Amino acid sequence: MDFNSLFEQIKSKGSFLCVGLDTDITKIPKHLLQEEDPIFAFNKAIIDATAPYSIAFKPNIAFYECYGITGWKSLEKTVQYIKTNYPEIFLIADAKRGDIGNTSAMYAKAFLENMPFDSITVAPYMGEDSVTPFLSIKDKWVILLALTSNKGAFDFQFMDENGEKLYEKVLKTSQNWGNKENMMYVVGATKAEMLSGIRAIVPNHFLLVPGVGAQGGSLEEVAKFGMNTSCGLIVNSSRDIIYSDASEAFTTAATSKAQALQIQMKALLLKYSIL
Amino acid sequence: MDFNSLFEQIKSKGSFLCVGLDTDITKIPKHLLQEEDPIFAFNKAIIDATAPYSIAFKPNIAFYECYGITGWKSLEKTVQYIKTNYPEIFLIADAKRGDIGNTSAMYAKAFLENMPFDSITVAPYMGEDSVTPFLSIKDKWVILLALTSNKGAFDFQFMDENGEKLYEKVLKTSQNWGNKENMMYVVGATKAEMLSGIRAIVPNHFLLVPGVGAQGGSLEEVAKFGMNTSCGLIVNSSRDIIYSDASEAFTTAATSKAQALQIQMKALLLKYSIL
Repeated sequence: MDFNSLFEQIKSKGSFLCVGLDTDITKIPKHLLQEEDPIFAFNKAIIDATAPYSIAFKPNIAFYECYGITGWKSLEKTVQYIKTNYPEIFLIADAKRGDIGNTSAMYAKAFLENMPFDSITVAPYMGEDSVTPFLSIKDKWVILLALTSNKGAFDFQFMDENGEKLYEKVLKTSQNWGNKENMMYVVGATKAEMLSGIRAIVPNHFLLVPGVGAQGGSLEEVAKFGMNTSCGLIVNSSRDIIYSDASEAFTTAATSKAQALQIQMKALLLKYSIL
Repeated sequence: MDFNSLFEQIKSKGSFLCVGLDTDITKIPKHLLQEEDPIFAFNKAIIDATAPYSIAFKPNIAFYECYGITGWKSLEKTVQYIKTNYPEIFLIADAKRGDIGNTSAMYAKAFLENMPFDSITVAPYMGEDSVTPFLSIKDKWVILLALTSNKGAFDFQFMDENGEKLYEKVLKTSQNWGNKENMMYVVGATKAEMLSGIRAIVPNHFLLVPGVGAQGGSLEEVAKFGMNTSCGLIVNSSRDIIYSDASEAFTTAATSKAQALQIQMKALLLKYSIL
């Protein structure tokens, strides 16, 4: 998917919501356990319930990989279902991969060629040649970890070299590898005020913001400090939407949660003159 | 596998060789393509050919993941074959995973519980809570990226905060998370002389050293600067061993390559009084 198609979807849906498919079989409604593939059955229902209010879905690959072959089948069915029924949706493989060049090329093939993901999250530790193999496929994106929303973010991401933090160095250096048409950054929403500093470094790139909802973080703050003239934000919510109700009415609850976020997002898009 | 079992294997085989199973279907001998599962057929032959001279095998997960379900089947058969036929072997999932705690826990389940890997390579960018879920399983190991052997290592790993490099900070900080019984470090062999500085920080931990062979790096230098009283080294070779011959005689060539390294390693273990 190219930059303009993504932006057009944001405007037409009045939303910059990503729904995270962190599907844990121990947390889905019990009546689904009798289905042949409970994880896919859950995902399909959540996708149908939230797609009108969402512009992206983000399967968290670990939650599928932990079931081996069975999990991969659920993942493949899920992404195929999205691409077939909601072709406008931006599809993110939340995989946090990154290895030497020939190995990253294999991961790129796995997610961006053999599966119809539009993008993959990538860890920057191994540097340029671990990231660029993901950038060589037309209309596919790298979403590079910059500032994550977890406690461990403080261990290394704030390392300081002459006033420049590691996450800032990642933002600056990686702009030589890709551009706003094929690279985004993960920026944790628990530190919304830091988004203005980040925007000074990457004014035009999309930012994938996890951590609104269960991990904390305010949508208003994120928009205030992070939005640009092309919206420039994809805000993820996983557990708050997909596990908001454990009964058979879980899709109604998921729709309500997604719609409530979309309404807030539309108001913010209007406030900042995107719509 | 515990520390002592690993050290005993090193002494009994006179080897600290790891064979990397970066199995690429475009590079294996052509006659294997008629097999039902060419990747597993190749791996099985390489494992049998090299196990007497090796103490570890390291499937590179990307090379299996890129074939989706088919690749996972080859991977599962490979690791099961090793554990059944060579239970003494230390099994490394070269996966470079690492995510927020609940997600790393899923990756730990995938590789260290559902599959019989003894260890997994982990990227440190997201800090403590991305690493510790892998450390909570008895006799399983994290092999944390510290200094990698690729060109991109220079992008961030040498970032300097008051004289301390990022890779040094990773080595120091992570010692609060695990110990020499459940944590090792990836240290690239293209910078063998840097091993003495690394040994000053982590004198007792095992180091997984990639890059001897196709990626360059001298075994003598690695032993000189990196060996400790428990050997403390696992040296990997992938392409040089597994692709040394593309004919039907590929196992003979792989045996020769592995045995030649084992002979060098035994001499070094004797030289440094481990044997």
